[in-house]
Amino acid sequence: MNSLDELVKLLSKLPGIGGKSASRIAYHLLQSDANYNKLLGDKIAHIQEKIFTCSICGSFTESDPCPICTDPKRDPKQLCIVEQPQDVITITAAGAFNGLFHVLGGAINPLEGIGPNKLSFSSLLSRIDKGEFKEIIIATNPTEEGDTTALYIRHLLKDRDLELTRLASGLPIGGDLEYADRLTLARSLKGRIKY
Amino acid sequence: MNSLDELVKLLSKLPGIGGKSASRIAYHLLQSDANYNKLLGDKIAHIQEKIFTCSICGSFTESDPCPICTDPKRDPKQLCIVEQPQDVITITAAGAFNGLFHVLGGAINPLEGIGPNKLSFSSLLSRIDKGEFKEIIIATNPTEEGDTTALYIRHLLKDRDLELTRLASGLPIGGDLEYADRLTLARSLKGRIKY
Repeated sequence: MNSLDELVKLLSKLPGIGGKSASRIAYHLLQSDANYNKLLGDKIAHIQEKIFTCSICGSFTESDPCPICTDPKRDPKQLCIVEQPQDVITITAAGAFNGLFHVLGGAINPLEGIGPNKLSFSSLLSRIDKGEFKEIIIATNPTEEGDTTALYIRHLLKDRDLELTRLASGLPIGGDLEYADRLTLARSLKGRIKY
Repeated sequence: MNSLDELVKLLSKLPGIGGKSASRIAYHLLQSDANYNKLLGDKIAHIQEKIFTCSICGSFTESDPCPICTDPKRDPKQLCIVEQPQDVITITAAGAFNGLFHVLGGAINPLEGIGPNKLSFSSLLSRIDKGEFKEIIIATNPTEEGDTTALYIRHLLKDRDLELTRLASGLPIGGDLEYADRLTLARSLKGRIKY
């Protein structure tokens, strides 16, 4: 196998990149600026040395603890529990939450062998016991696995004096009723609010 | 800008990769096997040192001249003219052509400032004059630029004793008449063959 085929094979392992896209990217790299290739290649090779997960909350960071965990302006009474490190970035970018985060590292998924012991529940409990949290916002994905995980968290924290909330499910803003799937529509009806 | 944002910005310059896909790939790289990242990063950084263009035909190769130009089993009487190096790989993979290639490096496109002087027509002429070609197959893309380039080649070679052919245009195999665009349908009617 020559270098070009090897590159295509490696590229096609990236998410959302099939064989055709991988070839197209490889040809592009062959004809693009050599400095760009060096820069991109070095970034990919060394990204995990630069960005790692925060030892407190588990989100991506360049310094440990991360800037969110050490930010004195953030509300230490609110804790938002998410599945993946990238969810922290997504929620932070939305700009509607000013508390702290806890990354589980996934969702409970028995079919894929992911039980509660594979997720960071023990560090969640010790954070809650040491911290001054009043509200726990469960922001797992609105999927079967996310719902299972949310239920598990509710069960785990039921004896503690905490307000437990969950992100609202419903119609996406800018979406069209006509294109909403049945489950989303059912949830948005069930969770209807007074106008 | 932190390392993650830099990586996303570099990735989003690749063809077919928008901002969302770039983020998705960056997160994937943060969580994937470190060896894979090293391998992919090194390949991208050094691909242009491994793969370059053949000094005779202009296609991608790891040795100069390329394996196609030096293959004694290939028919030295047929020359296929293509726009890009990757077209050589595509046509070779189709397995229906056993002659030699010539890569122009693009198509004539006055709007983007690509005139005939920017393409490898002089080396094409010297190859034809030195070689023993009988048939020249023009395999430029079935686009306006490709058609212009094909016309230019016809004009360029009109005084030489060569058979000039062009790839057939028409309905793609496995395609559906209903979904064919008007131009393709018109071309396939114009180029209809006896059954």
